[in-house]
Amino acid sequence: MFEEARRRDQQDSMADKRALFALPENCIYLDGNSLGPLPVAAKARATEVVEQQWGNDLITSWNKHSWITLPQRCGEHLAPLLGAKADQVICCDSISVNLFKLLCGALALQHGRTKIITTTDNFPTDVYIVQGIQQLLGEERCQLITVDETEIEAALNDDVAILLLTQVNFRTGNVLNMAKLTEMAHQHGILTVWDLAHSAGVLPLELDNCQVDFAVGCTYKYLNGGPGAPAFMYVAERHENAFIQPITGWMGHATPFTFSSSYTPHQSVSQSLTGTPSVISMSVLEASLEMWSDVDIHQVRQKSIELGEFMLNCMQHLQLTDTLPLASPLNPNQRGSQLAFKHDHAYAICQAWIAEGVIADFRAPNILRVGFAPLYISFQDIWTACEALQKIMQEKTYLQPEYQKKQTVT
Amino acid sequence: MFEEARRRDQQDSMADKRALFALPENCIYLDGNSLGPLPVAAKARATEVVEQQWGNDLITSWNKHSWITLPQRCGEHLAPLLGAKADQVICCDSISVNLFKLLCGALALQHGRTKIITTTDNFPTDVYIVQGIQQLLGEERCQLITVDETEIEAALNDDVAILLLTQVNFRTGNVLNMAKLTEMAHQHGILTVWDLAHSAGVLPLELDNCQVDFAVGCTYKYLNGGPGAPAFMYVAERHENAFIQPITGWMGHATPFTFSSSYTPHQSVSQSLTGTPSVISMSVLEASLEMWSDVDIHQVRQKSIELGEFMLNCMQHLQLTDTLPLASPLNPNQRGSQLAFKHDHAYAICQAWIAEGVIADFRAPNILRVGFAPLYISFQDIWTACEALQKIMQEKTYLQPEYQKKQTVT
Repeated sequence: MFEEARRRDQQDSMADKRALFALPENCIYLDGNSLGPLPVAAKARATEVVEQQWGNDLITSWNKHSWITLPQRCGEHLAPLLGAKADQVICCDSISVNLFKLLCGALALQHGRTKIITTTDNFPTDVYIVQGIQQLLGEERCQLITVDETEIEAALNDDVAILLLTQVNFRTGNVLNMAKLTEMAHQHGILTVWDLAHSAGVLPLELDNCQVDFAVGCTYKYLNGGPGAPAFMYVAERHENAFIQPITGWMGHATPFTFSSSYTPHQSVSQSLTGTPSVISMSVLEASLEMWSDVDIHQVRQKSIELGEFMLNCMQHLQLTDTLPLASPLNPNQRGSQLAFKHDHAYAICQAWIAEGVIADFRAPNILRVGFAPLYISFQDIWTACEALQKIMQEKTYLQPEYQKKQTVT
Repeated sequence: MFEEARRRDQQDSMADKRALFALPENCIYLDGNSLGPLPVAAKARATEVVEQQWGNDLITSWNKHSWITLPQRCGEHLAPLLGAKADQVICCDSISVNLFKLLCGALALQHGRTKIITTTDNFPTDVYIVQGIQQLLGEERCQLITVDETEIEAALNDDVAILLLTQVNFRTGNVLNMAKLTEMAHQHGILTVWDLAHSAGVLPLELDNCQVDFAVGCTYKYLNGGPGAPAFMYVAERHENAFIQPITGWMGHATPFTFSSSYTPHQSVSQSLTGTPSVISMSVLEASLEMWSDVDIHQVRQKSIELGEFMLNCMQHLQLTDTLPLASPLNPNQRGSQLAFKHDHAYAICQAWIAEGVIADFRAPNILRVGFAPLYISFQDIWTACEALQKIMQEKTYLQPEYQKKQTVT
């Protein structure tokens, strides 16, 4: 397998991208789906924005370095990766805050309809945000309905206001069919809100072509924007006039610097902004996003699938398949850029793997999750990681006390 | 006046604090009330969080470097500056988003009452946020009423739900009486929400003693947290059980990492968190906040008043008082750490001053605003700035075309 890995790495047209990242030595990083690593360009940009722009140019940087247009510029970098025409994407706040804005705004477009359908196994914050809206607006205006991933289609009907789905399941990696589900929802007059947390930067997306209504996503996973980097929002052009989001801060105003005493929404996706942008974080994010201008996302997807399949082959070859059963779909087209394995000691196994220089992550209650970020992961990385895993499983190193408990973050 | 300035600087017990800031040479920075300058410690922390923590330790930093408790730690640094006991302050999001959370949560505590009173001349985003809530909840649940600063007391009655006030007027610097207005509000059963954007880090605050209910504030002005740094929220301990904020993201959950499918609010001020914290920005902010541990805020206030009075003396000495009439209260105890001057060409004067190395700012429609951050501003700075201003006014340099139009940010 090692020879095969080497051969594949030699043929990898994307291999040179690894040099764009400041990865630590002796570390195989299979957790870019949780926190992408530091791009070299982002490191330099962080120094520039802190020392030059903030330090030397101070307040004048809002104009001199165009801080004020960072949310729009980051949106422009993202749009092609999302299959979105310009002026529909903007960066700000967190996924949770942005979902709140989109869901309230979308509900208001659906006069009389109150139901928001989502999946039981959606990432918790998506469900919590709907619960918060339901509590705020009352059940007569908002009702959360959760269904199994297999029951989505059956749950769609003319009473439903919004279908809120995360394209890639954060645990299993199962991919929902965006084109089909969006079309089915529209047949019932339902608006769709897609969470692209585990999609953006690794799956080819076609938001415009799929006629998606609204979307949110994360920039600190496959997009390498840095820990807690600002999220993004997509509002389809056709909704921009009628859509009104409720957290109407001054940055969403048509003319914020006239300091008018009355709110007039900006006539663009900029209406979805709220407060002053997080300049340092967003500058770092912009540097990370600039890397994507010459990346073919279809090639990224292709390599992601190959990495996943190669890992499954290695696991089989090393006889790990029975001890660590797959919780992800077997069909690679049916999963995102990750593999999930079930084990009662998943947490401890993850810690023992980290001690061996392989970083993956654990998702409660029993999932060992491995992410493939094709820009910097090689086939040799996968082989080495699997060999380390085999050793841990054979020697049951994970039973050692230092590998028990603690917590990590998405 | 120059000799007096020198004498005062020699007697200034706070003069050594200037070395804590990486201020550019040949620049007098009178805009720390808009964007505080770069602390040396924040510069070092930015490098550390980006290169060491993110770059080398990757996802493990959530535990290894305690990223996960940044919002609480920043809150602990802030609490003494706000006159707040521990566990009532937390850092997250922007003032605008946090106001939305507090106002919706406070409204829910005021069953049946719908009116939110604020001042006409409040910073626009505060007013806009109420307008957004009114639109979202309907006028039967939320009604915005704006009054002049002089009419606040007369507007208080038993029908009012919330009194939302910014302590220091962003244009004039006029200070509202927090103790008195909060007490009067409480006599009518009104809850108070104070915006401390232009107070925190320069005015001694007594949130607990004043029995304030809720507060928000900004960390990128006098607290030097960096452009767009996360804001803070204060929720008085007595409200923590009943208060429920509506943007219920996973970080506000009692146990976020159990990935439970149902939202249970954290039984503390951490309930007010929403999404993943902005780690880079918040780490930089923490370094800036650590500077305050040995600073006496009463001394800061004393020097701030002296700087303001000294500037007014210099202006008089240089015969600038008639051309640039004061828009701030004459009584220094009645104003925050700023002076506002009225002039039809205020924007251009500000630009011409910047060209002379003095950075102040402009606030529409006709205010030249000068902020005094006592940790790094000297009396000699003030004298030099006034001399430059006199030259601009005498020679009418501000009429030059390069100084017209453009915009800056709060």
